[in-house]
Amino acid sequence: MENVCVVGIDIGGQTSKIGVVDRNGEILARKVIRSDVYGSDFRAYVTSLSAAVDEVVGEAGAKGRVTGIGVGAPNANHYTGQICQAPNLEWAAGRCVDFASMLSSAQGGLPVSITNDANAAAMGERRYGVAAGMDDFIMITLGTGVGSGIVIGGRLVYGHDGMAGELGHVCVVRDGGRSCGCGKHGCLETYCSATGVARTAREWLAADDTPSLLRNYDTLDSRAVYEAAKQGDPLALRIFEYTGTILGRAMADFAAFSSPEAFVLFGGLARAGEFLYEPVRTAMEDNLLPVWKGKIKILFSKLKESDAAILGASALAWED
Amino acid sequence: MENVCVVGIDIGGQTSKIGVVDRNGEILARKVIRSDVYGSDFRAYVTSLSAAVDEVVGEAGAKGRVTGIGVGAPNANHYTGQICQAPNLEWAAGRCVDFASMLSSAQGGLPVSITNDANAAAMGERRYGVAAGMDDFIMITLGTGVGSGIVIGGRLVYGHDGMAGELGHVCVVRDGGRSCGCGKHGCLETYCSATGVARTAREWLAADDTPSLLRNYDTLDSRAVYEAAKQGDPLALRIFEYTGTILGRAMADFAAFSSPEAFVLFGGLARAGEFLYEPVRTAMEDNLLPVWKGKIKILFSKLKESDAAILGASALAWED
Repeated sequence: MENVCVVGIDIGGQTSKIGVVDRNGEILARKVIRSDVYGSDFRAYVTSLSAAVDEVVGEAGAKGRVTGIGVGAPNANHYTGQICQAPNLEWAAGRCVDFASMLSSAQGGLPVSITNDANAAAMGERRYGVAAGMDDFIMITLGTGVGSGIVIGGRLVYGHDGMAGELGHVCVVRDGGRSCGCGKHGCLETYCSATGVARTAREWLAADDTPSLLRNYDTLDSRAVYEAAKQGDPLALRIFEYTGTILGRAMADFAAFSSPEAFVLFGGLARAGEFLYEPVRTAMEDNLLPVWKGKIKILFSKLKESDAAILGASALAWED
Repeated sequence: MENVCVVGIDIGGQTSKIGVVDRNGEILARKVIRSDVYGSDFRAYVTSLSAAVDEVVGEAGAKGRVTGIGVGAPNANHYTGQICQAPNLEWAAGRCVDFASMLSSAQGGLPVSITNDANAAAMGERRYGVAAGMDDFIMITLGTGVGSGIVIGGRLVYGHDGMAGELGHVCVVRDGGRSCGCGKHGCLETYCSATGVARTAREWLAADDTPSLLRNYDTLDSRAVYEAAKQGDPLALRIFEYTGTILGRAMADFAAFSSPEAFVLFGGLARAGEFLYEPVRTAMEDNLLPVWKGKIKILFSKLKESDAAILGASALAWED
C-alpha cells in the first residue's frame, strides 16, 4: 500500500501524546489528551484515547492508511501487552491492565505494540535519528530517572519476561550508595538522572561553604546546575564531571555485555552534553577492555524533544 | 538427510579436542591433538587439525554425513572467522589468523563456525544441557578466568564486532580493586575465578593469624579451598561466601540488562556449587529489582567436564 502511516502514542502520568507519522518520520497531525482524569476507570481512558486516535487520524487525512499503533508507556510489557503496577497511572496502579488488546479492540483490530518509553526512544533513534541503520546500540535516557533501551542484532532486547533493559538500576556505588525509589541503593539513576544531579548539588552545597552561583538559586534542579556551569561556576562544572564519570564507567561495563556500536544519550540531562561529554568519554575509555578502546561512539539524540516520544512510539508500529 | 552429524572442536593453549557429535549429543568418536607444537606456523596447525578431523570422522563412520564444524577458541570472532591476538596460541599471538576459512578450505568447503569457549558452552547447554529450550539465559564460566555467553531471544549475543559477552571484565570493586590481566582493576574475574578464589585465600591468610586448614596446603589453589570447606574450615567457607556474594551482586546487575530466565554456572569453580549456591542466590535476590525477585533460576551445568567443550563447540555447527 502506498502512503501508509502509523500512530505513535506516548503515555505519561499527566498527558498522553498522540501523533500520526509517515515513513519519513513526519508527524502529520498530533493531539494531547489528559491521562490523569479517569481515576481508576481504565475503560474510560481507553475510550477517550481511541476517540482521540480517530480524530487525529482524520485530521491527518490518513483514514484507511494506518497499519498499526505503537505505544510507549511506563511499565509496559511488550510480550503481554499489559501495563502493570504503574504508580503514576492511576488506572494501572497496583494492578495490570490489558492495554494493547483493549486499544486494539477499540480500533477495529488494528495491531497495537507497546513497550516502555526508553525502549520506544531507542527504536525512534534507529528509524529516524542518530542511530539510523545501527543494529547494535544502547539508548540511555537521562530524565527524571535513567531508562535504557538495548538494541542487539537489530532487535530490542525484551528478555524472558518482556521487562529487560533496566540499566538505571544497575548498582554503581556498592557501599553507602544513595537510596533509590526502586528500594535498592546505589543505582545509576540516583546519580545520573536530572534528579541525581540536583541531589549531588544539594549534598555538596551542604557539605561545606565552597562559594558557588548555585547558592543563589531558589530551586536547585539540574537546570540550575546547567545554567551555573554555563557561567563557568566551578562547583557546577565539578557536578557534571562527577555525574559524567559515573555514567561513563557504567557504560564501559554495559559495553562488556553487548559490545555496541554506539551509546545514544537522550533526555533533559543530555542537553548538558557540552559538560557531560568529556567526562563520560574519558571515564568510558579508561574502563573499556582494550579491544573496544576508541571504537564505541557516544552520540546525543538530535530529535526534537517534543517529537521524540511520539516518533519513538510510532517506530514500534513499523517494526511489528 | 538422516543421521547427520557435526564436528565440535575445542581449542586450548595446549591441546585441541575434536569430536563427532550426533543430534542427541552423543559423542561418536573423539581425538586430541597438541595445539602448541607448531610454533607460529598456523598452516601446519590447520593441516594437522584437518587430518585429525578426517580421522575422527572416519572412526565415527560418519563420512559424508557431517554437515558442519563448530569451534570454540580463545579470542575467536564469530563474524570474521578469525582468531586474533590470542596470547596462549603461538600461531595466533600478536596477529589475526583466518581460522574458519582455512579449516573450511581444508575440509572441502564444509561450513565452519567459530566463537569463544564461553559462548560455545552456552550453546552447548541450550542444546544438550540444563538450558534446554531456553531462549534467554546467561552462561557464566568460572574457570581460570570468568567467561560468559549471553543468549537473548534464542541467539548468542555477538555484538557489533563479534566480541560481546565479556562479563568477567565488568568492574565489581571500583576503588582499590584487584589488578586484572586485561589491564583494568576490580574485574569480576579477579574475584570469582578459580584464580580469584586462590588470591582471596592468600590475601586473607596473610592478613592475620586466623587458624585454618588452608595453612597446611603447599599449593593454595581453589581446589584446596574447596577441600578445606568440605571439612568445615571456617575461613574456607568464608572465602566461598565472599566469592559468591560478589558473583551474586554482579548477576543482579546482569539481570537488569537482559532479564534472563536463568543463569547457568559452569567450570572448575562451579563444582563448589554446594558452597557457592547460597551466597550467590542471597546476594542476587537482595540486589534484584522487585520485578525479578524469586523469578530467575540459578543452575549448575550437568554436562561432563570432559564432554562439555566438544558439545558446546558442536552446538554452534547445528545453529548456522
